[in-house]
This record gives sequence, structure tokens and C-alpha cells, in this order.
Amino acid sequence: MPAITPDWDSEAVQRGFPSQTGGPLGGWKFSNFKDGVFAEFFHVNSADSNLAHLPDDMSLEAGIMLPDMLSTGFAGAEKARIDIGATVAIIGIGPVGLASIAGATLRGAGRIFAVGTRPVAVKVAREYGATDIINYREGDTAEQIIRATGGTGVDAVIVAGGGPDILMDAVRMAKPGSMISNVNYFGEGMGDEEILPIPRIGWGFGMADKDIATVLCPGGRVRMERLADVVTYGRMDPSLMATHVFRGFDRLEEALLLMKEKPRDLIKPVVLLD
Amino acid sequence: MPAITPDWDSEAVQRGFPSQTGGPLGGWKFSNFKDGVFAEFFHVNSADSNLAHLPDDMSLEAGIMLPDMLSTGFAGAEKARIDIGATVAIIGIGPVGLASIAGATLRGAGRIFAVGTRPVAVKVAREYGATDIINYREGDTAEQIIRATGGTGVDAVIVAGGGPDILMDAVRMAKPGSMISNVNYFGEGMGDEEILPIPRIGWGFGMADKDIATVLCPGGRVRMERLADVVTYGRMDPSLMATHVFRGFDRLEEALLLMKEKPRDLIKPVVLLD
Amino acid sequence: MPAITPDWDSEAVQRGFPSQTGGPLGGWKFSNFKDGVFAEFFHVNSADSNLAHLPDDMSLEAGIMLPDMLSTGFAGAEKARIDIGATVAIIGIGPVGLASIAGATLRGAGRIFAVGTRPVAVKVAREYGATDIINYREGDTAEQIIRATGGTGVDAVIVAGGGPDILMDAVRMAKPGSMISNVNYFGEGMGDEEILPIPRIGWGFGMADKDIATVLCPGGRVRMERLADVVTYGRMDPSLMATHVFRGFDRLEEALLLMKEKPRDLIKPVVLLD
Amino acid sequence: MPAITPDWDSEAVQRGFPSQTGGPLGGWKFSNFKDGVFAEFFHVNSADSNLAHLPDDMSLEAGIMLPDMLSTGFAGAEKARIDIGATVAIIGIGPVGLASIAGATLRGAGRIFAVGTRPVAVKVAREYGATDIINYREGDTAEQIIRATGGTGVDAVIVAGGGPDILMDAVRMAKPGSMISNVNYFGEGMGDEEILPIPRIGWGFGMADKDIATVLCPGGRVRMERLADVVTYGRMDPSLMATHVFRGFDRLEEALLLMKEKPRDLIKPVVLLD
Repeated sequence: MPAITPDWDSEAVQRGFPSQTGGPLGGWKFSNFKDGVFAEFFHVNSADSNLAHLPDDMSLEAGIMLPDMLSTGFAGAEKARIDIGATVAIIGIGPVGLASIAGATLRGAGRIFAVGTRPVAVKVAREYGATDIINYREGDTAEQIIRATGGTGVDAVIVAGGGPDILMDAVRMAKPGSMISNVNYFGEGMGDEEILPIPRIGWGFGMADKDIATVLCPGGRVRMERLADVVTYGRMDPSLMATHVFRGFDRLEEALLLMKEKPRDLIKPVVLLD
Repeated sequence: MPAITPDWDSEAVQRGFPSQTGGPLGGWKFSNFKDGVFAEFFHVNSADSNLAHLPDDMSLEAGIMLPDMLSTGFAGAEKARIDIGATVAIIGIGPVGLASIAGATLRGAGRIFAVGTRPVAVKVAREYGATDIINYREGDTAEQIIRATGGTGVDAVIVAGGGPDILMDAVRMAKPGSMISNVNYFGEGMGDEEILPIPRIGWGFGMADKDIATVLCPGGRVRMERLADVVTYGRMDPSLMATHVFRGFDRLEEALLLMKEKPRDLIKPVVLLD
Repeated sequence: MPAITPDWDSEAVQRGFPSQTGGPLGGWKFSNFKDGVFAEFFHVNSADSNLAHLPDDMSLEAGIMLPDMLSTGFAGAEKARIDIGATVAIIGIGPVGLASIAGATLRGAGRIFAVGTRPVAVKVAREYGATDIINYREGDTAEQIIRATGGTGVDAVIVAGGGPDILMDAVRMAKPGSMISNVNYFGEGMGDEEILPIPRIGWGFGMADKDIATVLCPGGRVRMERLADVVTYGRMDPSLMATHVFRGFDRLEEALLLMKEKPRDLIKPVVLLD
Repeated sequence: MPAITPDWDSEAVQRGFPSQTGGPLGGWKFSNFKDGVFAEFFHVNSADSNLAHLPDDMSLEAGIMLPDMLSTGFAGAEKARIDIGATVAIIGIGPVGLASIAGATLRGAGRIFAVGTRPVAVKVAREYGATDIINYREGDTAEQIIRATGGTGVDAVIVAGGGPDILMDAVRMAKPGSMISNVNYFGEGMGDEEILPIPRIGWGFGMADKDIATVLCPGGRVRMERLADVVTYGRMDPSLMATHVFRGFDRLEEALLLMKEKPRDLIKPVVLLD
């Protein structure tokens, strides 16, 4: 079951944006305005079009990553307009960032910079295809990446983490003629006016062909089946992100608290029900 | 002769971004770092690839609009991903904004909102295909357009004018699942940090599929020839924008001062040499 | 009501091909496998997603062209990857061909060749934007067009008519680096093997970047509403194609026979019910 | 040095088709109309834009695959419009076919069918990502693939081998709503008329949204550098295709004869000069 469950009879589907059915972010029903996230039984809208079978030989730890982490992270890579051999930077190595790294690899990126520090995540980042790890504690990340690329910057940036001013870095590290693809949820803005800043000069005064794309996690049955095929045919292993596995409904609270505490060895906690 | 004269042997050409040859905005040589803007004779780089013949039957008033106004304005429409029958808003009805309106019409837009007030420009805006004129003095432009579209907003916005915070309006008036295409030169930023703000909520927290594209005026011989065909085959008449026509090299200063003064009846002054 | 009524909960929708729901050409239900084409009342699948309101001020003669002629012809132009100012050839000036000409104009084509002979259709072809009429009785059409373009051929071809070997002409008249977009229904093949031939040399031995696209008329409510906007906002007038207008259910047979007889002054017969 | 060396000041570059500079297949100079294929020193047109440095740590066996095999095979995958997790079939497992398999994997394909029989090539096909091998001796390949996909066919087909009627198979094995991408050089046609046949019914009478793309190997310095990055960063290993390695100019004839004889254990012979 995908995190995003579009109403497939909605007009936004016909415009090509199923995740935006019924209004902005309207396909994102569960955890927003539809009940059932932590229930044993719940109602799914457009069930035939949204639910997919879990393949017999797929582990639950892998399967649970498909609906949100993989679909979001891969979408970040898909919208980043990555040509084979292109140089890509991914900001953030939480689960979505890691899936974006895997997604960039799946689109044929050559060199991949990953911005992050936590050792457990860095290890998976490398498994998923990152070739250079950038530590933001060692200086301005945009400058580090520009220096590492001989002054040119990267062909594509995927923003999968960061605060309200993260686009300042993302736009600067991108080449003239490039794509910045955002899958970061901006939970707060900068200042009272609720703004997200773009750098005037880094953006080439609005004329450097640095496009900025956004996307909400694609849902639907076909998406889920295709992501399942990615795993089934061994293109990548999402279970590497399941660092903490719990069993049983009563462990839910424990797992959730873990996401709040964010211990150093956590990527994603998973609760399995038998 | 196009305003932008790329070096066609540059790597940016091979990446698909000729206007960014040799660095950000690098194809924009004249009026930036190459002499000859106001000279009788001057050197043009990659002349075979950049110069095009003026068709015999094209007026000079029309021809002079092709290299910059038409190429920039049309590019704004081209990057706006306009489907046939889509609803489009153009912010600004200076010469580039007017060319963007014509460009939106040439891409098959249905309803076209134009944001501006000057009567002489409003008249040409309607000639070029604008169906609704929005006066920013009558209230928040985004709210006016959202109201006029029954609460949905537009499929595409072309930003062809406005101050450092104009993206705040542009993003808000766009539908979830839409494109904001910028051809505005941001000559100054907001505040000391040189930023251009995007609205956090209007942008759907970064997840409403509202992409933001930028483009620098495409140059080159093929572009000029194609724009010439647009005029030759009667698709639109760029000479409507030449409101003030001067003859002779010695009228240059007069024409330039007019651009600074911006009288109410000016769209674009033109100086013709015989 | 569109000619094509996709099941919007089908997997082909999620893949981006609503017209192919449930199998090849599966969205094309009426006149194929769903009853009701000539009935007063009939059942429409996914009615909320497929039916659109006829705008109050639209004539019936115009409105009846939207569901099939306009949607198909425009789709031919949309898939032809037409850049502003590009040179386009349309083969066939029946109603779909005429709509393709209008579609090419709506995508910003410069010069437009139309291949056909019937005076009544030639007149509308010119109204819709054709700049050059090619008469296939005056010699090989591909050669005529190549000669008229100084030996280069066209950027895009829309095939909207012709027999089983029409792709032979279409591919040859296209430039290296071009698009051939087919909206022709091939009712019969060449020879016993049911083949449609492409020219080996004209296609550059399979290496001349001459892509061949096909498309089935897009359906759905949003498509209909957008096409209605094209008419409402005066971008083109589809009623020019309604050369023969009948009133009343009992004139149906007469109108149908007209389509079989194809008199010289016919483009499309229309039967209106009050 | 790429196999294709476009003239970067040509008009076809500005239209977006560098491989077609100066006429169909015009970027393909060496082995066609420019001398130097087997010379020790030779002239390269647009050398700054076409030549790239061989990275220090790249083997010659790997490097020699970039200019033609990899660039062509990857282009086949790039034009096949492969979504992450899509199902793809590649016809032919010669060196270009194998590179197409690697290319499909680099674009994120899920399941990959490869049509071919020679054991040495089958082994590399699996290394490059093929999940199912189809033997054309065991029955109609299209039928085998349709059966293996539960009757639906594949999302994309890359044609990298086969005789003049190979598109008959390719089109039939593709889903309604799919892409057939051709990188096969058609050295001869079917019958006296030099035709390449498409199946009328399998192509959905021209209306099943089965597009057919063609492409000539992309050249240029940037392309070469990006392919080099693919190898440098370990995305795939092209040297697996160099089954027969010769050293010294005088072994040239021997290597060429091998390509004519096609022994069962040959993929590609390579001649290295020190």
C-alpha cells in the first residue's frame, strides 16, 4: 500500500499530477486527513488502483520501504533530469536521501556526492552508489562540491533534507544549465513571512537555466509494482535502511520514539506484524 | 544578429545549454563583456552559427524585435510546458512580457491572464492573445487570478517583470501540478543576503509539483531563422511593440533616455540605420 | 462527451496512456464494443471523469468537433514535437488533417505544408494556418516538399491520411532529426503479410533520428474542457469543418451516406438534435 | 575519440541533433568519408569539442568501448524512455546489444529480457543486468516475451540487431503505450523496394501509442567524458566485451577477419597500440 493514494477519477490525474488530486498534496491522505495509519483494518480509497501485492519472496523489511522512502527518493532522482554519466549531489542521507542516492544510481549518474555525516548512513550511501561524502562540518557544502568538481558544480542536485535555507546551498552548487530537484518537506520557513530563500547571484539573476523541480511521492498500484520489480530483480536492496526492526503492534510507540530521538545508529525503525 | 551569441564549440552546448557557454550567462556577450553594441562595425564570435539573414520582406521594426524580445519571451512560454488549452498567467507587459503572451498563444494556451496596467501595452497584450487583464492596483494579483479561475489557479505562470519578491505571487497563483517559468532579470535581491523568496505554504511545503524554470534568451542562427519564419508566415506581428521609431545613429541617446524615462505610451523605442 | 472514454481506474492510466486502458485502443469504446452511438440515451463509463459541460455560448456545430476531430488532430500536433517556428507538413486534409493543421499552428509552427486537393478543404486549411498547399497529382509529394524547402525537408510530419504505404512518403520528407507523428488509422496493410512499410534509405538505415510517434485520440473531461477553452477564447473555429448540417434524428442515415459518398464539397456532416 | 565527430558549428547542432550535422548521419565521418580509421596520425574535425582525455586509470580495453559501443548502446536505452522499474526487452546481444542492456540497467529498468543465444554473450548479458534470456530458436520471440509477461508485453524494446523484418517482432512484443528504440543499422531492406516492415495489427492500426525512435551514436567530448565517468565510478565494466585482445598495428587484419568470421566465443576484438 503506497503512502500516497490518489483518487484516480480526479481531474489532477488527467493533468498528469496524481499526487495532487483534490488540492495541493491531496493524494497524501494517510497521516494527514484519513484515518487508519496505526489501525489493524482500515479503508483505502480507489483500492484496486492503489494496492499492490507484496511479492512472495520479498522480505517485509524491504517491502515496507517501497510505499514512501523508495517512491519519494526515486522520484527526486527522476525529476532531476539525470543523463547517463552526469554528476549529481544529494543533500541529506536520511532514508529519503539514501533512496535518492539509489535513485540517482538507477538513472545512470556517474559521480555522486552525498552530503551527510552519520556513519551508519554514510555506509549505506556508499552501498547505494555515493562516490564522495561531503561533511557539512568541514565547511560550506556548496563550496566543497564546487571545488571537488574543478569549479564547475554538478549537473543535478537532489534536496532530501535541510532547513528553510537549504535551497541557498543547492542552487549554488548546481552548474549553469542544471536541475535542482526537491523532495524535502519544508516544515518551517525563514522569518515571519514564511519564505524559502533562493540565492539571487547563485541563481544567475534568474537566468542561469537552473530549474527547480518539486514532487510529492508518487502513489498507485503500478508505481508499487515497478518498485517491487526493482527489488525483485536485484537492482538495489532497500532493507539496508531498516536498522531497527520491532515485532508486534505493541512496539509501535517504542519505534516512534526512536524516530524522535534519532540515535546515531538509526536510519529507519520498522515494526512488523505477523 | 541574436542578443545571445554562444560559442558553439563550448561544452555547455553539448550539455544542451548554449546560452550558458563559458560560465553562467556566458552566451550573453554584447552589453556585458564584448564591445560593439553601439558601433557601426563590430566583431561577432562564431559568426556563421550566430548571424542570420534578414528576410527581404521583413520591416526593420519587426526584425529588431527577434534577437532579444521575441527570443526571450517565447523561451519563457516554451519552458512553461503549456499544453493546448491550458490556462496561463503572464506577469509583466513590458516588451518581454508581451512577447511571452504571444509565445503562450503560439503554444496553444486557452485563457491567458496578463498582469499590467499601461493602456498602450494592454492594447498589444490583447492583440497578442491575452484574454484577461489583471490590474495589480486592484488587489493582490494572485488572489485576483485564483478567484477568476474558480479557486484553482493557473497551469503555468511566466514571470516577465516584477521586483525581488515577485516569485511569491507567481508561485501562489499556480495550481498544484504546474510550471513557473522565469524570464525576469533579478537586478536586486531582498535584504542584505541577496535572496529571492519563495512562499513556503504556497509552494506546498516543497511538495506541490510546482516547478520553477529559468532560461536565458536562446541565440544562434537557427533560432533567428525560426523566429523570422514566425513573422514571415504571419503568426504574430512584433512591430506592434515598436512604439517609438528613430532614424539615424545620432538619435541613439534620445532613444536610450526614453527607456529610462518610461513615458506611459512607450513599449520599445527603436533606432533604425539606413 | 469525448470519443475516447478511458476507464480512469485502469493501470494504463498510471503508465501515462489513458487511451490504451484495458488493452490496445481500449479507451475507444463507442463505435467499437460499447453500445449507444446512435441512441438517445446511453451509458457512459467513468462518467464524472469523461463528460464535460458544453459551454453556454458554444455552437453545437463547433462543440461536436471537440471529442474526436480536434482531440485527434491536436494530439497529432502535440506528439510532433513542434518547436516555435518549425516547418511542418501535414498529409491529408480531411477533418483530422485540418485539425492537425490548426494544432500545428497552435504549437507555433512557422511554415506549414498541407497535402491535399479538394477546394473546400484547401480553403479551411489556409484558414487554419497552412501556408503551402501540395497537390499529390503534381508529382511525388515528398520530392515537392523537399524541393520547396531547399533540399532539407521538414522538422515534423503529421500523417492524417493516406494508404498503407503513406509512411514511405512521410519519412522521406522529414529532415534528419525530426518527428513523424501518425494519427492515421491504417484500415488495411500492404500485401498478405499485413505490413506497413518504412523506407530503408529515407529512414537513414534506422539511424537518422527520424522518430515515429503514434497516438490515439485523448479523451477525458479535462481534455474536453481544454479544447472548449481553445474555442471559447477564439484560438480557432472548428465549425468551419461542418459543411453539411442536418437537424433531427431521422436525418442520421442521410448524413452517414454522405460520409460514404464523399462529395467534393464535404468536409464533415453534422446531425444536430434539439 | 568518439566514433561520431560532429561539426559543432553546424545548424543540426542548434536543432538538437549533433549526429546529423551536414546531412543524414553526417556526424559519422570516420569509416564513411573521412580518412584515418587505420592510420597512426589523422585529422579530427572540431578536435577541441570532440576529443577527450583517457583517464589515467582506465584500461585500454575499457576505453576503446566508449566511442561507439557504449555511446550507441546507451543512446538506445536513453531514447527508450525507460521509467524506474519498467520492463524492457533488448533484441540482439552483440556488443551494441550488450551495451544497451547495461544502458537499460543504468536507466533503472526492473526486468530485462535479452534475445540471443551465444553463451559468451549470454554470460555478459547477465552481468550487465539481463534477467531473462530469450532464445529465438525456441519459437517466436515476441510470443515468448508476451507469454512471460502474462500477456502484456514490455514497456520498451531496444532493437540492437536483426534483419530487415526485425521491427515486426519488436513492435509486437511492446505494450500499448510503449517505446521501440532502434540502434540497429539496416544494411539491407526487404524486397526490391528497400522497405522495412512494421506490423499493421501489432502496431494497433497506427493508434496504440507505440512510438518508434531512432538514434545515431552521440559523439562529442562531453559525451565521452560522461561515459568515462560511468566506468571510472564503477557503474559498469565495458572491458568484459573485449574477448579477443591483440597488440600491435600489424594484428589489425587478423582482428578484422575475426569480426567477419564471428567465432562463437567472440564479442569484440580489440587491437591495442603501445
